[in-house]
Amino acid sequence: MKIKRVAIDTHPDNTAFLLRSGNGYSAEQFQALRKIEIGDGACSLLATLAIVDDPAIVEPDTIGLGEQAFRRLGLPEGSEVTFRQAPVPPSLEHVRRKIDGYALEETEIAEIIRDIAAYRYSPMEISAFLVACAGFMTTHETLSLTRAMADVGRRMRWPDEIVVDKHCIGGIPGNRTSMVIVPIVAAHGLTMPKTSSRAITSPSGTADTMEVLAAVDLPEERLVEIVAREHAVLAWGGRVNLSPADDVLISVERPLRIDTFDQMVASILSKKIAAGSTHLLIDIPVGPTAKVHSMREAIKLRKLFEYVGHRLGLVLDIVFTDGSQPVGRGVGPVLEARDVMAVLRNEDDAPEDLRERALMLAGRILEFDPALPGGRGYARAIELLGSGAALAAMERLIDAQGRCAVIAELGGHRFDVCTPRAGTVQAIDCRLIARLARLAGAPMDKGAGIDLMHKVGQKVRAGEVLYRIHAHSETGLAYARELAVSNSGYDVG
Amino acid sequence: MKIKRVAIDTHPDNTAFLLRSGNGYSAEQFQALRKIEIGDGACSLLATLAIVDDPAIVEPDTIGLGEQAFRRLGLPEGSEVTFRQAPVPPSLEHVRRKIDGYALEETEIAEIIRDIAAYRYSPMEISAFLVACAGFMTTHETLSLTRAMADVGRRMRWPDEIVVDKHCIGGIPGNRTSMVIVPIVAAHGLTMPKTSSRAITSPSGTADTMEVLAAVDLPEERLVEIVAREHAVLAWGGRVNLSPADDVLISVERPLRIDTFDQMVASILSKKIAAGSTHLLIDIPVGPTAKVHSMREAIKLRKLFEYVGHRLGLVLDIVFTDGSQPVGRGVGPVLEARDVMAVLRNEDDAPEDLRERALMLAGRILEFDPALPGGRGYARAIELLGSGAALAAMERLIDAQGRCAVIAELGGHRFDVCTPRAGTVQAIDCRLIARLARLAGAPMDKGAGIDLMHKVGQKVRAGEVLYRIHAHSETGLAYARELAVSNSGYDVG
Repeated sequence: MKIKRVAIDTHPDNTAFLLRSGNGYSAEQFQALRKIEIGDGACSLLATLAIVDDPAIVEPDTIGLGEQAFRRLGLPEGSEVTFRQAPVPPSLEHVRRKIDGYALEETEIAEIIRDIAAYRYSPMEISAFLVACAGFMTTHETLSLTRAMADVGRRMRWPDEIVVDKHCIGGIPGNRTSMVIVPIVAAHGLTMPKTSSRAITSPSGTADTMEVLAAVDLPEERLVEIVAREHAVLAWGGRVNLSPADDVLISVERPLRIDTFDQMVASILSKKIAAGSTHLLIDIPVGPTAKVHSMREAIKLRKLFEYVGHRLGLVLDIVFTDGSQPVGRGVGPVLEARDVMAVLRNEDDAPEDLRERALMLAGRILEFDPALPGGRGYARAIELLGSGAALAAMERLIDAQGRCAVIAELGGHRFDVCTPRAGTVQAIDCRLIARLARLAGAPMDKGAGIDLMHKVGQKVRAGEVLYRIHAHSETGLAYARELAVSNSGYDVG
Repeated sequence: MKIKRVAIDTHPDNTAFLLRSGNGYSAEQFQALRKIEIGDGACSLLATLAIVDDPAIVEPDTIGLGEQAFRRLGLPEGSEVTFRQAPVPPSLEHVRRKIDGYALEETEIAEIIRDIAAYRYSPMEISAFLVACAGFMTTHETLSLTRAMADVGRRMRWPDEIVVDKHCIGGIPGNRTSMVIVPIVAAHGLTMPKTSSRAITSPSGTADTMEVLAAVDLPEERLVEIVAREHAVLAWGGRVNLSPADDVLISVERPLRIDTFDQMVASILSKKIAAGSTHLLIDIPVGPTAKVHSMREAIKLRKLFEYVGHRLGLVLDIVFTDGSQPVGRGVGPVLEARDVMAVLRNEDDAPEDLRERALMLAGRILEFDPALPGGRGYARAIELLGSGAALAAMERLIDAQGRCAVIAELGGHRFDVCTPRAGTVQAIDCRLIARLARLAGAPMDKGAGIDLMHKVGQKVRAGEVLYRIHAHSETGLAYARELAVSNSGYDVG
């Protein structure tokens, strides 16, 4: 069979197209052939088979490949290939045992993860594995999963003995401490190659906010070069492909919203290990509308991080932070970048909570430096921020990554949400504020988002503005306004 | 948008095709649009969206529908439709709670099942539901699931007060008792509209074997007509579409091989209720290579059947049978039909175990007849079989359904598997015999299968034939022979 490119994009799946007649296959055989393996001996690819009744789409003796499949197989049009029914991955037997309630061995989990990373599992099969794991996992299984996920990708190597990193388990809008911490740590001279994700369900990820100031989509050589010169980087991690298994798992976890502690620990630690980190600070915000609701849960999560991290040779520091309300004032890329730069520039009206939190976390990372006397981290962080050394480090990072030519503007469509009565702000719903910012257009529309005028504990007069919604489009504003009017997310009492 | 039929078959999924440019959608929007709902106001359909870069496949302002989707939507080509991002079924929230370990309410399970039956769940989502249920289900949840699955389809109504049925949970090759029982019960005058499945993983289902003798793919009107005249039918159940939710669930259960007691009970009882049965005999074979391995498991399953069945108003009789070896001699459609007819014809060499088992089960069904004195069922069954009344009833059924014009022949390619040593047959592996018959070509090749010459407890001489493999093709024979030579499935000691 010769391959032919078919101009149909079935992202994210691979699809192959075969003419129904003239191939020597019967209807029943095609049914069994639903998933096929195509290859030329050297490389191969799994694809879902679609049967075509129109020779204009694929001719006889030709196997059509959709755009995904054609790109991933990487052979030129007209190449000779063979195909066969895709073999069932033997590791599915382990998944069945997990469904039946057994704990799996390390080697069994490793086989599953290798097959998942090689795209040998269908979404249905990945879902079965994840849901079976959500039922229960032993800490040993979580350790095995983390190790398997780290092993299946490449690992980055750094010349430094200590490579620090931080991770926040997220859920708090405006929580852009990394963009303050990384310049402080870089100014001190510790190596911190920070790769971040873009927003998945939040109104902005660190990569989205950094992108307001500088390029974040950097090829690996550039990234390594920048770290060698500046001790740090603030880049998007998507380019580096450190954890191929995690990427596949997330594609199923996200729509199903599976968010167990086991998957979280395995995903975070496997990526950090693959990224070459040796010392890691984990920030767990705790609050009623955060990801972790109670101290009991937070402690359970901390212990799981410690169990797995220590056995994989990571030095861990885990800190619980206030997750009761958004951090800073802005929520959305442009607004958050404004807050970050205000803190780095030591502006008088810089948001105090963002500054204080970033200093505390940076201080704990600096404690990883064996040269620094114990307990001096926080003072050192204040010194580096106050002296302008952190700002200078940030400016060098921005230049090294590529400064944005245009200054991103705030969305011109605005709506002020006011309090109907006077009182004190008792609580702010993190999830609702995040949803409002997304409805307004963040993170796609960089200047869309929410600007909070008042935080928990502040007094407000009747009719005073609680927050302002910014949007680039009238539609975005209307969506956010509609929700904000029905529920402001503020509890004023 | 106008609809256009695209000659691409993506069975079992619905696929829609849309040109990438000229539709006013950006790449990101297309990504969000991955699953769409298409409709004209009156009817609608969910489909996966494929993006096309070739206007020869779909033109601008046209939405292409693959063959599955076009047929299911049922509108003529050129009809005006609109489409939108498929809404996420709200019942997925219940699935997430189930994953988190909660027991679901009856109304929640009913919502899930309605959405599944309406094709609103992706295979990934169905898998999540099934695996979460496999973790644990309360008996009340199993009851709710059964009721929901029965409610979601149509129900057949019969004029008779008592409508009997039987179900064997399967796993025993050659166990074609239904084809003996139904004629006996029909000859007695009880109503028994037996619909059966085709083989899924076994070498033959009752529908496959009956098809050797008569047509089994009957439209519902024919089925009702035959039952009115003959008290019974022996038809394929696939046409009647009694349990649409079950069909969708099975499409995921089968590849994942999820086979829990809860799903089994819900699947069987919901179908029987939908089929209008009032009295049901359930046959649970117990044996080391059967589906149910131990009496402890069998009792657990019986109690679950009773809990659910009684609450749904079914009169149940549950019987444990010997599942230690195949029943009868033949395994495969033609061979099994031969055994069944030998029993009905009271032939001297008819397989005694098939005859005895069918009489016992038929006797218990006849006990459902209030007019029959208690304990007389078995004797009545013997009477109806011995007198030829059952054979006459079977001949009438075959004629009513449509007698096969040609007599199906046994596969001409044969291989005898012999015992290397003398002794007594200690055990026969049901799974291996089933696998051999499937490798030989059953059930697609009607005349393929295994003819067992010796059963457990019989003495064999060295070199004597244990069983004969029949196949229609040299390839089929070679596959089966290869396995049989490495493992005959017989334990001769």
